[in-house]
Amino acid sequence: WCESLGGVTEPVDLGLQTLPDGSRIVRPPALFATFESTLPDAPTLCVYGHLDVQPASKEDGWDTGPFQLTEKDGNLYGRGATDDKGPVLCWLWFVEFHRKFNLPLPCNLKCVFEGMEESGSEGLEECLKSVSETFFHDVDGICISDNYWMGLERPCVTWGIRGNVYFAVEVRGGTKDLHSGAHGGAVQEPMTDLIKIMSTLVDSATGKILVPGIYDEVDELTEEEKERYERCDFDVASYANEDTGGMPLLSQDKATILMARSRYPTLSLHGIEGAFAGAGAKTVIPRTVVGKFSIRTVPHMTIDHVAECVKRHVVKVFDTLGSKNRLKVNVIHAGKPWMGDLNGYNYRAAAAATKQVWGVEPDYTREGGSIPITLTFEEVSGGKPAILLPIGQGNDGAHSQNEKISRRNYIMGAKTLGTYVYEFSRMTQEEKAKH
Amino acid sequence: WCESLGGVTEPVDLGLQTLPDGSRIVRPPALFATFESTLPDAPTLCVYGHLDVQPASKEDGWDTGPFQLTEKDGNLYGRGATDDKGPVLCWLWFVEFHRKFNLPLPCNLKCVFEGMEESGSEGLEECLKSVSETFFHDVDGICISDNYWMGLERPCVTWGIRGNVYFAVEVRGGTKDLHSGAHGGAVQEPMTDLIKIMSTLVDSATGKILVPGIYDEVDELTEEEKERYERCDFDVASYANEDTGGMPLLSQDKATILMARSRYPTLSLHGIEGAFAGAGAKTVIPRTVVGKFSIRTVPHMTIDHVAECVKRHVVKVFDTLGSKNRLKVNVIHAGKPWMGDLNGYNYRAAAAATKQVWGVEPDYTREGGSIPITLTFEEVSGGKPAILLPIGQGNDGAHSQNEKISRRNYIMGAKTLGTYVYEFSRMTQEEKAKH
Repeated sequence: WCESLGGVTEPVDLGLQTLPDGSRIVRPPALFATFESTLPDAPTLCVYGHLDVQPASKEDGWDTGPFQLTEKDGNLYGRGATDDKGPVLCWLWFVEFHRKFNLPLPCNLKCVFEGMEESGSEGLEECLKSVSETFFHDVDGICISDNYWMGLERPCVTWGIRGNVYFAVEVRGGTKDLHSGAHGGAVQEPMTDLIKIMSTLVDSATGKILVPGIYDEVDELTEEEKERYERCDFDVASYANEDTGGMPLLSQDKATILMARSRYPTLSLHGIEGAFAGAGAKTVIPRTVVGKFSIRTVPHMTIDHVAECVKRHVVKVFDTLGSKNRLKVNVIHAGKPWMGDLNGYNYRAAAAATKQVWGVEPDYTREGGSIPITLTFEEVSGGKPAILLPIGQGNDGAHSQNEKISRRNYIMGAKTLGTYVYEFSRMTQEEKAKH
Repeated sequence: WCESLGGVTEPVDLGLQTLPDGSRIVRPPALFATFESTLPDAPTLCVYGHLDVQPASKEDGWDTGPFQLTEKDGNLYGRGATDDKGPVLCWLWFVEFHRKFNLPLPCNLKCVFEGMEESGSEGLEECLKSVSETFFHDVDGICISDNYWMGLERPCVTWGIRGNVYFAVEVRGGTKDLHSGAHGGAVQEPMTDLIKIMSTLVDSATGKILVPGIYDEVDELTEEEKERYERCDFDVASYANEDTGGMPLLSQDKATILMARSRYPTLSLHGIEGAFAGAGAKTVIPRTVVGKFSIRTVPHMTIDHVAECVKRHVVKVFDTLGSKNRLKVNVIHAGKPWMGDLNGYNYRAAAAATKQVWGVEPDYTREGGSIPITLTFEEVSGGKPAILLPIGQGNDGAHSQNEKISRRNYIMGAKTLGTYVYEFSRMTQEEKAKH
């Protein structure tokens, strides 16, 4: 289809994937598609999307065949409708429209469509880095349409993503598990030490991280930012009931919740490796236990500072325990937070397009989770600005049963992305003219 | 063999066992064997042993065939040599000796030999209760030879066993696990609450239980008791290196260690059900977590008091957290502690026999783990005293590779048990004459 629209396509090898059983298979290649503009001095926009989806079967509780696109009550149901085949198609409808009416594209479009996103985009980062000097040499900005509005009514642009520093704190006792009847009371149990350490990390009632120094690098909240959260289209009641499955909220205030989820760092205790995790009663004293927790970081927190604060704190708490067990603190995964420049040409283009198509100012949202490919795109293009521009609604149910995109959002979304390309072209040229 | 020795034997049905796959098989029957004495007014001794063993194969690291009894350097190697076929045979050698020399048995012997001990003695308790009025109606005492000396040199009698109250503390948040990126900061995480609760239960440096009231029912230590622990044949260095696999000890003092393992209650944290327990990094906020811990109890702690103290404490700590999650505290398993009467006829008989055969006063030891069948025997015999009289050494390696019993312990053990039967007969008759 890309080729029939005049695109130059190139399947790109993403290498081999190692399966859990140790065997290796070839990863599905990514697709690079370039659509050249015939206009002189047209800037270049890189757009990203993915074609793979989560598994789905009718038995999971779908009302319609998950792989049979079905329209019902103004919604288009089907696996991938919103994540992320629908948005990908919008880019191609935009190109087709120009071919049909023989219009020049306002930008050169460079599409990166992959098939491994739901498996962690394995191989893509290396691949993008390897074409940094070639494919990306003339890219002026990046647009990612792989997320969703906050609510149902107001479009948004996403301008921040949290990072993540994942810790494994190991307390090692001896070389074998012991029976609590035979040895309980005689030995210093690694589990007791670890639980003490884990209990000092975060406050139960407020969610505040108790690790000294951890907030040092967090930006001060500005009045403007606060107002942005206060005007967001977000319904606390439906968040509390549906999105969180009834898990109690730490606050009932909309802006506080939104900021806690995306603007401030948080610490979650995930579990303990090496301890008894099954049902029933097992009287083991585990020989070595590894506590897992992670800190979601925000701009401008650095991985080094976070790791140093946590290590210093954990070692200090462990020292107060008077334990002869051995302690190790490791970062087993780390990703940086990211924040776009709301005043830059990429964001101004998206805001202008939203206003033209929807008639409203978009919400400015930040994501709580990490989308590391965003940082990679900025990096390989030599620091050109990326934006996340969603078209689906907050209740689309990506990854869930009955995933959908509304007919309205699909059509208006295609218009939004198309208008955005025009605005991107205009604002990029203005920006270039300034220098 | 029992029958050829003049015994009356009876295989006793232990019912059906349900396997993990849901299928049911017939449990191996227990064997009741009665050897009547021809003496008038002979008392009746019930002896207990088991014939089943833990699995073993040469590949596990055995130097000899595990099911081929092999003598080497004065030791008899083979699975079951010390746990518990060797001790069981001693009882039969005792009977055979009397048949061979045409001597009357000093006691009626009622043997209970089972084949399910290594699988938790399933079905035996019910079975014993059902014959309380028949098989057990005339039993004057019980002897169990299914444990070991503390060290290598000095014989012991075991006069106490810890109980166990196993707790499951559930903190329930919502109906689904959440992603820490998307929702971390917004919700009150059940894991955070649970870790706080678990951190208040036991002191890391001393092993002291921090639950208020828990020591209320623990007996005061007497000077006599303390001396008994101080004279025990127990090597701290080899305990620290071999038995505990190098897990650090809370004390280096022999008596303190022995008392911590058996004379005082202890609390061990076993693990958490519902949290992430695997290797690697998973960024889950678990919806419901269940903390498992147990308290090893000692005479005269009651299950009710322990459960009440823990419940009151956990609820109080949870209340301070200001959490809107839901809490449940359950006892999922409970067994009573047990203590024999060292001044009673059964213990005096064992001490006298030990002195005659080994020329020394036995160590008086207590077990840290629970052996619930001991309490059952006392109960079904209407409160007649039970004793644990071990013949194997502390390094016999029950359940391990190269399990053995020394030739010396086997022969002297048979003599000890035999002499004990005579002493039991004499002292029981003296005791009866008093009343």
